[in-house]
Amino acid sequence: MCQLLGMNCNTPTDIIFSFEGFRLRGGLTDHHADGFGIGFFEQKGIRLFHDDKPSANSPVADLVNTYQIKSENVIAHIRKATQGRTSLANTHPFVREMWGEYWLFAHNGNLMNFKPSQGQYYRPVGTTDSEAAFCYILEELRRRFDEKPDLKTLAEAIQELAARIRSHGLFNFIMSNGDIMFAHASTLLYYIIRKAPFGEARLLDDDVAVDFASVTTPNDKVAVIATLPLTQNETWQQFACDELIVFQQGDIALHNRPEKPRYLSQEEGLAIARAAGVVA
Amino acid sequence: MCQLLGMNCNTPTDIIFSFEGFRLRGGLTDHHADGFGIGFFEQKGIRLFHDDKPSANSPVADLVNTYQIKSENVIAHIRKATQGRTSLANTHPFVREMWGEYWLFAHNGNLMNFKPSQGQYYRPVGTTDSEAAFCYILEELRRRFDEKPDLKTLAEAIQELAARIRSHGLFNFIMSNGDIMFAHASTLLYYIIRKAPFGEARLLDDDVAVDFASVTTPNDKVAVIATLPLTQNETWQQFACDELIVFQQGDIALHNRPEKPRYLSQEEGLAIARAAGVVA
Repeated sequence: MCQLLGMNCNTPTDIIFSFEGFRLRGGLTDHHADGFGIGFFEQKGIRLFHDDKPSANSPVADLVNTYQIKSENVIAHIRKATQGRTSLANTHPFVREMWGEYWLFAHNGNLMNFKPSQGQYYRPVGTTDSEAAFCYILEELRRRFDEKPDLKTLAEAIQELAARIRSHGLFNFIMSNGDIMFAHASTLLYYIIRKAPFGEARLLDDDVAVDFASVTTPNDKVAVIATLPLTQNETWQQFACDELIVFQQGDIALHNRPEKPRYLSQEEGLAIARAAGVVA
Repeated sequence: MCQLLGMNCNTPTDIIFSFEGFRLRGGLTDHHADGFGIGFFEQKGIRLFHDDKPSANSPVADLVNTYQIKSENVIAHIRKATQGRTSLANTHPFVREMWGEYWLFAHNGNLMNFKPSQGQYYRPVGTTDSEAAFCYILEELRRRFDEKPDLKTLAEAIQELAARIRSHGLFNFIMSNGDIMFAHASTLLYYIIRKAPFGEARLLDDDVAVDFASVTTPNDKVAVIATLPLTQNETWQQFACDELIVFQQGDIALHNRPEKPRYLSQEEGLAIARAAGVVA
């Protein structure tokens, strides 16, 4: 299944525990995966690993696990191809520079008849609806703002652009510049904020547990965002349909929840995704 | 020592042999390296590995060697920091999208008082003179050409921009969009074109040899570009000072040699680099 994973923290944190569950959940170990990608911010720089090979023995995935990269902002994606053939150029997360910062973007969904006109500043390289949507968002932001605006203005603009795009179909996405992380749900998306007192968490899909108290300090805050909850003994918050949340320093900086929030059950959300061809 | 390595081929080729020599030559195994980077084109996509850790045991470098990525265009760089601190954002090669294609760029040299005004299309993320030069080239190209021009027009524009930039100092660089590879020398740069009949090549810096005849077909063509020759029993061609060569399909597509070509001896070239602080 096509899935998103994001992490935003107030201190560099490794994502190995969540990534392990994500790999299993996302079908890395079965034949459904059409590749995966993970991008780590390290200060202003980006470390990006893509694998277009559907392999449980991916040396890239192994490197991610063994290298123990600590990062304040991570975006990962496992892909079931809906539009665009499986190739490196079509593998999320996508990256572009805007306002002198790198931006990472990953999308879960499927957009129909989404053909924005050619951008002046940003053009897709591959053939996915996802990269087209990312370039459209950046193009519109860059046209409106020569320099990065304040967070509230930026969030409102992104919310407006997301509304335009989701009229074309499923549009769950995560986007970050290494400082803030925008997460938007049109159907299913969950988050959790881990902070003191830390407890034990146990993966839903594997017999793996971690005692966060033993690997954190009392000041740590870690927000994790995922298509579906990754752990069985923690309370994950669900995004309302069409909700945008901005995370910063491992916590919520801004909310943009619809006036009458609507929540899908997992069954409903998965059924919609399946009907749109997103779930294998 | 700060070094460049480029490879342009007419068939996907692994770079392991050249990279092995490059690692040794570039000082990956000693304390001089301030990180390295290597970027592979796979069709229109890019696989980029950066390491800002000066380590002979770099897991990223090991992955490059074990993963056996085959590519038609590769750019690698080993860095001795001259401007900008050692960080991921300052590690070559740099990447940007232009005209719906990814472009990779790596630079060997040191530019003084090079402060182009802020770009509309491209802005540096890090603090190096190199990324500033790359963004300046892309900005100027993008301002002149809404779409990618023909190769001759593009090469002339790049040659003109390179001349402007090298008035600020040492400016050896390699740049590619996955199809063509531009290589420009202001001081030292060499290339070799390997084609049938293939023979054995032996690394200058290590007791490693490869018999290319056993790993190639008669139609293969592979151009390798490097700051200094990597092998001891092959004839490497030297770039004239201020020469731009465009490689395509493993061969020379265009030449732009000065009317009165001037060649530095390796000693002269290294002395100039040392005076500019490029060689440790």
